[in-house]
Amino acid sequence: MSEAYVHGYHPRENERLQDQAGTLVDLLHCDTSYPPGSVVLEAGCGVGAQTVTLAARSPGARFTSIDVSAVSLAQAERATRSAGLTNVQFQQADIFALPFAPESFDHVFVCFVLEHLSRPVEALTILKGLLRPTGTITFIEGDHGSTYFHPDSSAAHKAIQCLVDLQRLAGGNSLIGRQLYPIMVEAGLEAVRVSPRMVYVDSSKPALVDGFTRKTFTAMIEGVRESAIDAGMATPEAFDAGIRDLYRTAEADGVFCYTFFKGVGEKNGRG
Amino acid sequence: MSEAYVHGYHPRENERLQDQAGTLVDLLHCDTSYPPGSVVLEAGCGVGAQTVTLAARSPGARFTSIDVSAVSLAQAERATRSAGLTNVQFQQADIFALPFAPESFDHVFVCFVLEHLSRPVEALTILKGLLRPTGTITFIEGDHGSTYFHPDSSAAHKAIQCLVDLQRLAGGNSLIGRQLYPIMVEAGLEAVRVSPRMVYVDSSKPALVDGFTRKTFTAMIEGVRESAIDAGMATPEAFDAGIRDLYRTAEADGVFCYTFFKGVGEKNGRG
Repeated sequence: MSEAYVHGYHPRENERLQDQAGTLVDLLHCDTSYPPGSVVLEAGCGVGAQTVTLAARSPGARFTSIDVSAVSLAQAERATRSAGLTNVQFQQADIFALPFAPESFDHVFVCFVLEHLSRPVEALTILKGLLRPTGTITFIEGDHGSTYFHPDSSAAHKAIQCLVDLQRLAGGNSLIGRQLYPIMVEAGLEAVRVSPRMVYVDSSKPALVDGFTRKTFTAMIEGVRESAIDAGMATPEAFDAGIRDLYRTAEADGVFCYTFFKGVGEKNGRG
Repeated sequence: MSEAYVHGYHPRENERLQDQAGTLVDLLHCDTSYPPGSVVLEAGCGVGAQTVTLAARSPGARFTSIDVSAVSLAQAERATRSAGLTNVQFQQADIFALPFAPESFDHVFVCFVLEHLSRPVEALTILKGLLRPTGTITFIEGDHGSTYFHPDSSAAHKAIQCLVDLQRLAGGNSLIGRQLYPIMVEAGLEAVRVSPRMVYVDSSKPALVDGFTRKTFTAMIEGVRESAIDAGMATPEAFDAGIRDLYRTAEADGVFCYTFFKGVGEKNGRG
């Protein structure tokens, strides 16, 4: 993996991810809860942006949340402790070298992780192997190519493309949301069902204008400014024009659209 | 208005529009019904693709459905008669020269019409004037810029852009879906709420793969082949490559996404 920016692993990004989790909780998580006694693996918990919601929504389930970054894990642990949650244990581990026996978990949950992996199907196959026969696996991913807005702006689309290109250079895939279905099927999951979770923002929804258009999406694109300029993907002027146009969509007559995708599959199609 | 292609006014297009209406009925119309005794104007009914659903869902309401095209109106009338509906009367009229007194209607319904108008805000203002004080007005529009798919293809996006450009040359706007909110607010409507209606298609939904990806969307783009080539927007080879790639998204590992937008506003914000 190159040194190119990967979001989620820079300190100033963490606040953004926490904001995002707060704004989007219902949209992404409303239909995920695990029965009491379930043993659930959260693979790639990062700073715990989803962990708190996940564990709070299934108080009787026991979660094991893993991440490759010890720094992120420490923050995730603080976040769950602050929330008074006691049903999560944290463990440092790499998805491609997991320290768990086959069929150790009833369910697996993976959010905003596949976009960073160069071998997503291999990761799914590994995770599937950890599931008990009636287990389910849930994925949530964004798709930066799902972004459109009013007023339309080619400068803004070019700034977004910088993040897509940087993520590709880092071995990831910013367009993975739309690909969840074929990836899950290719990994041999059964009864796969994928649903879009579209974020539609106009000025009748000021919390989303601020929390999503400005502080989540545009902040994320702004976060790659230096990397994009250093990589020769954009001039400072062109990039800044794109960012200006993204903020323009947060004005009173602006509209912003983005879609997350959520996929659920079963190990044996009998869950 | 130029002679460029405008969909809905060519005979072989009618079947496509009827197909589309069938596939998308629930997504677009599930939350539209009018109380018994309501007097409702459907402005721009075309061949009646929406009229049958609209009138069937509100059997106690009385509809007046207008269109500029006598040929389309005759077909719409046959469609409602075949469906056994008696609560619709048809009238040939132009939205910009309507033969109705102010405040003649309880509600107004407009579907796939604004995309064809060069002065949408003016049309909305005229329609608003026809509403009684507690009236509502509903708009449904597509947005061709909301289209994305897997496998991604620049040839396919270029073929779609031909339709967007042809519609712009004809005075219309293929990206109007995302603009419903600001247009409705600008026309002085109150309590405006816009919701996206996203069509997500993967191969677990064969009826949508066939009914929407192939027979609605790709057929619509294919329908402008000659116009796009005549206008010098694409070579036959480039256009056909785009169409081939659109059909490719209908294969087993393909995914297709498109979003309609539905907006409802009130005349006085007290409805």
